[in-house]
Amino acid sequence: MEKKYLQSITSPADVKALPETALPALAQEIREALIETVSETGGHLAPNLGVVELTIALHRVFHSPQDKIVWDVGHQSYVHKLLTGRYDRFDTLRKEGGISGFTRPDESEHDIFYSGHSSTSVSAALGIAEANKIKGNKNYAIAVLGDGAFTGGMVYEALNNAGRSDTRLIVILNNNEMSISKNVGAVARYLAVILSRPGYSRLKSRTERFLNKIPLVGKPMSRGLSSVKSHIKNFIYSSTMFEQFGFRYMGPIDGHNINVLCDALEGAKELNRPVLLHIHTVKGKGYDYAEKSPALFHGISKFDIDSGEPIFSGDNYSKQFGTFLADMAEKDRRICAVTAAMSIGTGLSAFQTKFPDRFFDVGIAEEHAVTFCAGLAKAGMLPVFAVYSSFLQRAYDQIIHDGALQKQKVILAIDRAGFVGDDGETHQGILDVPFLNTVPDVTVYSPASYSELKSDFVRAFYHDEGLVAVRYPRGAELPLPDDYQSSGGDFDVYGDTDADTALVVYGREFAYACAALAALDRAVKIVKFNKIKPLHPDAVTLLAACKHIFFFEESERSGSVGEALSLLLAARDYKGGYRHIAVPDTFVGQASPAAQLHKYGLDADGMAVAVTAYFNNHET
Amino acid sequence: MEKKYLQSITSPADVKALPETALPALAQEIREALIETVSETGGHLAPNLGVVELTIALHRVFHSPQDKIVWDVGHQSYVHKLLTGRYDRFDTLRKEGGISGFTRPDESEHDIFYSGHSSTSVSAALGIAEANKIKGNKNYAIAVLGDGAFTGGMVYEALNNAGRSDTRLIVILNNNEMSISKNVGAVARYLAVILSRPGYSRLKSRTERFLNKIPLVGKPMSRGLSSVKSHIKNFIYSSTMFEQFGFRYMGPIDGHNINVLCDALEGAKELNRPVLLHIHTVKGKGYDYAEKSPALFHGISKFDIDSGEPIFSGDNYSKQFGTFLADMAEKDRRICAVTAAMSIGTGLSAFQTKFPDRFFDVGIAEEHAVTFCAGLAKAGMLPVFAVYSSFLQRAYDQIIHDGALQKQKVILAIDRAGFVGDDGETHQGILDVPFLNTVPDVTVYSPASYSELKSDFVRAFYHDEGLVAVRYPRGAELPLPDDYQSSGGDFDVYGDTDADTALVVYGREFAYACAALAALDRAVKIVKFNKIKPLHPDAVTLLAACKHIFFFEESERSGSVGEALSLLLAARDYKGGYRHIAVPDTFVGQASPAAQLHKYGLDADGMAVAVTAYFNNHET
Repeated sequence: MEKKYLQSITSPADVKALPETALPALAQEIREALIETVSETGGHLAPNLGVVELTIALHRVFHSPQDKIVWDVGHQSYVHKLLTGRYDRFDTLRKEGGISGFTRPDESEHDIFYSGHSSTSVSAALGIAEANKIKGNKNYAIAVLGDGAFTGGMVYEALNNAGRSDTRLIVILNNNEMSISKNVGAVARYLAVILSRPGYSRLKSRTERFLNKIPLVGKPMSRGLSSVKSHIKNFIYSSTMFEQFGFRYMGPIDGHNINVLCDALEGAKELNRPVLLHIHTVKGKGYDYAEKSPALFHGISKFDIDSGEPIFSGDNYSKQFGTFLADMAEKDRRICAVTAAMSIGTGLSAFQTKFPDRFFDVGIAEEHAVTFCAGLAKAGMLPVFAVYSSFLQRAYDQIIHDGALQKQKVILAIDRAGFVGDDGETHQGILDVPFLNTVPDVTVYSPASYSELKSDFVRAFYHDEGLVAVRYPRGAELPLPDDYQSSGGDFDVYGDTDADTALVVYGREFAYACAALAALDRAVKIVKFNKIKPLHPDAVTLLAACKHIFFFEESERSGSVGEALSLLLAARDYKGGYRHIAVPDTFVGQASPAAQLHKYGLDADGMAVAVTAYFNNHET
Repeated sequence: MEKKYLQSITSPADVKALPETALPALAQEIREALIETVSETGGHLAPNLGVVELTIALHRVFHSPQDKIVWDVGHQSYVHKLLTGRYDRFDTLRKEGGISGFTRPDESEHDIFYSGHSSTSVSAALGIAEANKIKGNKNYAIAVLGDGAFTGGMVYEALNNAGRSDTRLIVILNNNEMSISKNVGAVARYLAVILSRPGYSRLKSRTERFLNKIPLVGKPMSRGLSSVKSHIKNFIYSSTMFEQFGFRYMGPIDGHNINVLCDALEGAKELNRPVLLHIHTVKGKGYDYAEKSPALFHGISKFDIDSGEPIFSGDNYSKQFGTFLADMAEKDRRICAVTAAMSIGTGLSAFQTKFPDRFFDVGIAEEHAVTFCAGLAKAGMLPVFAVYSSFLQRAYDQIIHDGALQKQKVILAIDRAGFVGDDGETHQGILDVPFLNTVPDVTVYSPASYSELKSDFVRAFYHDEGLVAVRYPRGAELPLPDDYQSSGGDFDVYGDTDADTALVVYGREFAYACAALAALDRAVKIVKFNKIKPLHPDAVTLLAACKHIFFFEESERSGSVGEALSLLLAARDYKGGYRHIAVPDTFVGQASPAAQLHKYGLDADGMAVAVTAYFNNHET
């Protein structure tokens, strides 16, 4: 569909130049663009539909990039991208080489930070605001975050510091009462209380009547008078909690009324001190299906616009895990499930429904989640924290201090381990193996199939001591050879067991290794780890007897299992060849997982090429 | 001095059995024991002097270990140890094989969790409380934490979850208005406002007068009436902030009045819902010097009781760093210093005084600190976050997501790297190398002397890109050979440069390697890394040409530089011998750093032994 206004916008200056009367049409065009593109590319739809008016208002009132707008998590930054010169490339969203689904400084000067993990925006914006103060410039730093991000502890650490700062920091709390899953916790309830105040629904009309009594409204007016108006509005509502943090509180205001938003933002600018502006939006606004199922349309794959039906993606590890855990919990009343705002994504919906007393959605609070699990375990429960690999990074200290050291049976179900595809740098699951490797007394499994996933959890529940992690990739299991049968032990050997050449793998790399066998013109065995920490000494012994070892690992190299194995072999004075193919100390950008595996030589083709090249160089 | 009451106490039951009239004398004896022991062993004095009455009251009212008391950070748990059967061993405090300076479950059933890192207690206690609820038992979970811990985001994540829980969770906020350094931030100010309410100073007497009007006070009374009294007291004061989190708020009350404390705790028990009890204590209470200088006496080395003078420990890396950074900041107005409540410990006091506008104590908020630094850097500053190695673990995700990925010049000054001695498992600095190794695009230095410390920071400021860390040990530099001169490059070679045997080291291990040379009866070169990430390829080339390599590394093995080097050598088809001596996937307990180095074969003796044993086995 034609986008008359949107296609004319190449920078925020063009947004400012539009007449006020054109803005509703612009908002409509943006919504159409969002729905059209995301229905094709997948991505975060509902959060962006909710911030259309807010983003227009921000770019009319502030001067980006001098004023720095920091989008928390970044999955609500699509509108910002459309208004900062990226409409013409927007159809490349989340594709390799295309527009990122999150903010990226290398994509635009208007993207201040890479984003992807939650609750960081206030800290980053406060740093910018303090620097502005030191340097004596008058620019603003604006953090925009949802009520979901408000459940993360970092926000409070930042608010605690921001309140005392004499800076031009503006924090915009976009309250859609949903965040990713239905929001939980005391703060969400508190925010809902504010929104439900009797006066709120009448705010807009009352304010407008009030302002109409001031002369010159709607005509050219002095900055001074505009400021007075804003000040008056600021004081209509106030909230103790944010004021206790030292902020001037403004709100709540209607986040879908551009004029009200612009007035409020102008007012916030005039205050010259930290301001918290509380706006109320509807997640999924303007697309019926998304308004009705905001959690489903938070992050979504391709879908049909007319029916709102996602194109079904079939079975996957998350679903298998969720079903299995609910089955286990039926039999064992000690099993608890914990999620950090990812109940649907991690497959826990059924568990949540069946066992509400043993299900805990703690908000976007991975740190608390791990220590909370340690407490549950201390008192005799069997807690399972289901979490995406990348987000688990935030609980590294708690894994060490409250998990491993306490020797409590805390079980981590690590979803999205390995390459995750189009979400790019901030979501890759290629660090969990390295960072878990650094932690003493931890057990880690990496299954290659649904059935191994289940048997690994059974071992975790009833066999292992202390903290245990089971990590599995995004998507479905890959087909394995018919003649492969897991021994159920720590490792398996497949292929030519007498061969002097070994391919070492774990997880889904096993499927690629099996496929690579056909392309190799030599006898090869595959040593497949099931437990990757600690490594079984028999596996090391077996490998030490091989002449040539190739380890293909879907992980960052530094701290990987392949590094650990290298040292174990050295300790046995291994004199054969050893090659380790992994991600070399770099961040991995967006592309399909298949493309990512191929790029780093970790698919069947890459394996065959690496082995062949090695022997071409080594054999005379 | 004789401890008539204290020596009769072998368990909390003995505390309960004492007549009320004996309690002030018991408190006095405890204070004497604390001062006598800590003046000899060093440790956390001021925090424990502040919780004498609170701890007595807790053990009179609750039934440990059925009721679980979780001490946040644990450095205020000495009194608890004295009252739970550890008085007779208390003189072994913080010594190898002795009583821990923190809670340890393997030391007593009354110690619920290992402790050492801040702000975890509410999460852990909530886990216990939820488990109790699921199991249907009536025990209490009690978290005790200071106002310092309240600056950590985890507490808010936990409070956000606890408010909605229908559990027997009691959170005791011990407000001494100091935490470790003088407390900062909005929450501290808010708590101070509560404490300064006009009514507070009159609370005790007013309450007592009020209660005296109720019949039967001071005589045997029914549980019901006692409950009524407690309820009445609960409502004398209330505070919106904690109530917004869903807690019943009680306080503030005098934390040095055992009777008031016991009444309040009994009242909290009766409520059968999450309660926040706010008590006011004086840090260092009962020892003049500690009351006057609570930050100095927070954690202290041996000191003279009569004069309150610490036995001076001389120069150290922290002081050298602090002086140097202040000098640099004089010349370069972009340099900022950030600390997470460790201004004195990290040597930043002078910087704080000289450049208050560029100094930021963010509270116990390492996560925020790193992202805040990224914001400062984004806007043109040169931020340095000075932090203990062990505490930096908490910012792992921010180092990745907001530091390294953003390519901002964030500089980490990592103090207490390596073995730290008597603080034990939760404070060792042996994970920073492994976890920083996992992060792409990071530069890490490990100086071996004060002069290298300074040149490394100069490189970090003016030479390197992105996130840079300089890590240095607790204590003083070790003497280096007169003929050693750093090249100022990434690595140096010392000793017999033609030798086919190499000792590989970095940081203070270099001094031990130099000392070991004399004990070895063969030609040896020492390859000393200055930059440990990334490794210079020339150093790898040089080592690949050696026949025998011994890497001595004061770090956990998994993810270490030695593992990385092993793989780099394998990629070059290295066929020589390679031995890596490091900490083998285990937690390291309290002992002197010298004893820890010796235990893991990382002192000069250990080096000589390892090399000699290797050649005895390998040479025919």
